[in-house]
Amino acid sequence: MTSRPFDLLNESVGKEVLVVTKGSLSFRGTLKAFDVHMNVVLENAEELLEGETKKKYSKIIIRGDTVIYIAP
Amino acid sequence: MTSRPFDLLNESVGKEVLVVTKGSLSFRGTLKAFDVHMNVVLENAEELLEGETKKKYSKIIIRGDTVIYIAP
Amino acid sequence: MTSRPFDLLNESVGKEVLVVTKGSLSFRGTLKAFDVHMNVVLENAEELLEGETKKKYSKIIIRGDTVIYIAP
Amino acid sequence: MTSRPFDLLNESVGKEVLVVTKGSLSFRGTLKAFDVHMNVVLENAEELLEGETKKKYSKIIIRGDTVIYIAP
Amino acid sequence: MTSRPFDLLNESVGKEVLVVTKGSLSFRGTLKAFDVHMNVVLENAEELLEGETKKKYSKIIIRGDTVIYIAP
Amino acid sequence: MTSRPFDLLNESVGKEVLVVTKGSLSFRGTLKAFDVHMNVVLENAEELLEGETKKKYSKIIIRGDTVIYIAP
Amino acid sequence: MTSRPFDLLNESVGKEVLVVTKGSLSFRGTLKAFDVHMNVVLENAEELLEGETKKKYSKIIIRGDTVIYIAP
Repeated sequence: MTSRPFDLLNESVGKEVLVVTKGSLSFRGTLKAFDVHMNVVLENAEELLEGETKKKYSKIIIRGDTVIYIAP
Repeated sequence: MTSRPFDLLNESVGKEVLVVTKGSLSFRGTLKAFDVHMNVVLENAEELLEGETKKKYSKIIIRGDTVIYIAP
Repeated sequence: MTSRPFDLLNESVGKEVLVVTKGSLSFRGTLKAFDVHMNVVLENAEELLEGETKKKYSKIIIRGDTVIYIAP
Repeated sequence: MTSRPFDLLNESVGKEVLVVTKGSLSFRGTLKAFDVHMNVVLENAEELLEGETKKKYSKIIIRGDTVIYIAP
Repeated sequence: MTSRPFDLLNESVGKEVLVVTKGSLSFRGTLKAFDVHMNVVLENAEELLEGETKKKYSKIIIRGDTVIYIAP
Repeated sequence: MTSRPFDLLNESVGKEVLVVTKGSLSFRGTLKAFDVHMNVVLENAEELLEGETKKKYSKIIIRGDTVIYIAP
Repeated sequence: MTSRPFDLLNESVGKEVLVVTKGSLSFRGTLKAFDVHMNVVLENAEELLEGETKKKYSKIIIRGDTVIYIAP
């Protein structure tokens, strides 16, 4: 059971997540790490544009203050 | 009776809420968790576009500083 | 007499207020609660669009950092 | 003589001021109160649109972080 | 010689400066006061639009976090 | 293995990275330095526009709070 | 060798730098001073518009939180 928001991120480490940021960017990849600022590292990540893969990154760090939502 | 704003969130845990964010995104789902930054976790969430379901998420964390309002 | 800005919010608890936020959203309802971040809870609230009622909420929490102004 | 910026606000309490905010909103009214965040309360305020009165408020609190400038 | 950025503001008190803010507003006037947030007070100020005087203010306080640059 | 987001930056010093900022700017270059604000210094950097080199810089400091993501 | 981002600014004092800010403004001039907020003072500065000199300033202070990047 999730009792604090960051518990959801903790439960999601090693799993695939979707990260949507300001400026309408979307990334899908395996959550490797996060911190209290909601900075996240994804592995085997792809940047999505209207549901299609636009670019691929073996690793990527996304800055927390640009995040709108993260969904496992 | 609500005497502080976050009391309303506290009363709403386990109930359905609507979350509207900057960039005109709307989410409806069951409030599972929140924190002092107004980060919220919704369960069985749907992203709404002009009142229609656009996407579904079993769980989603929405970053507090993108929230405009939350309505139970 | 009002001597500090938040005194006006304090005097307005239980009364109808208009809250205008960034992104040109307007809400009218009974002020139930506020905090030092200017987060506010309205009861029997309506979201207004060009003066017309667009949506109704029995309760709503509006995030302080999206507020432009509040008028009792 | 003004030696610190907030001295100008202090001198302006009880006088008419113009407040211009982000999003190009303009308000004219009697300055009743302000605080260190530049939150201000105006009395007998009017919201101006291209120099014309658009709305009137007996009292209004304007959030400091939306202010661009204030002129007595 | 200027060794810290605010030294330039200190040297400019009593002199004419140009202040350019977010949202492309420009103000010219005599710098009367500033503080650590870069809030500034100008005297005999004019708001400029494409190099032309648009409005005149005997005194004006401009909020620091809207400033892009200040030039003596 | 990456266990905190900044570990990825640490592992990337001396390697080529892509930095994407708000306002849709992209930079590619060798990561020379970073700090806790995610300010980064790139060497032999190029600013990219739609995948093409637009400008070249022998060294460049990019401000952390404009960063959206960094990919090694 | 640069080991922290601000070292690059330190090395650049007295040299010509390019400063690019939010809102797509560009300035070229001699770096005279900077502080921890990345506020910078340029001397013999010119504001550039599409590579052309638009305005000249003998001295200018640019607010750090509007900076996107600085290149020596």
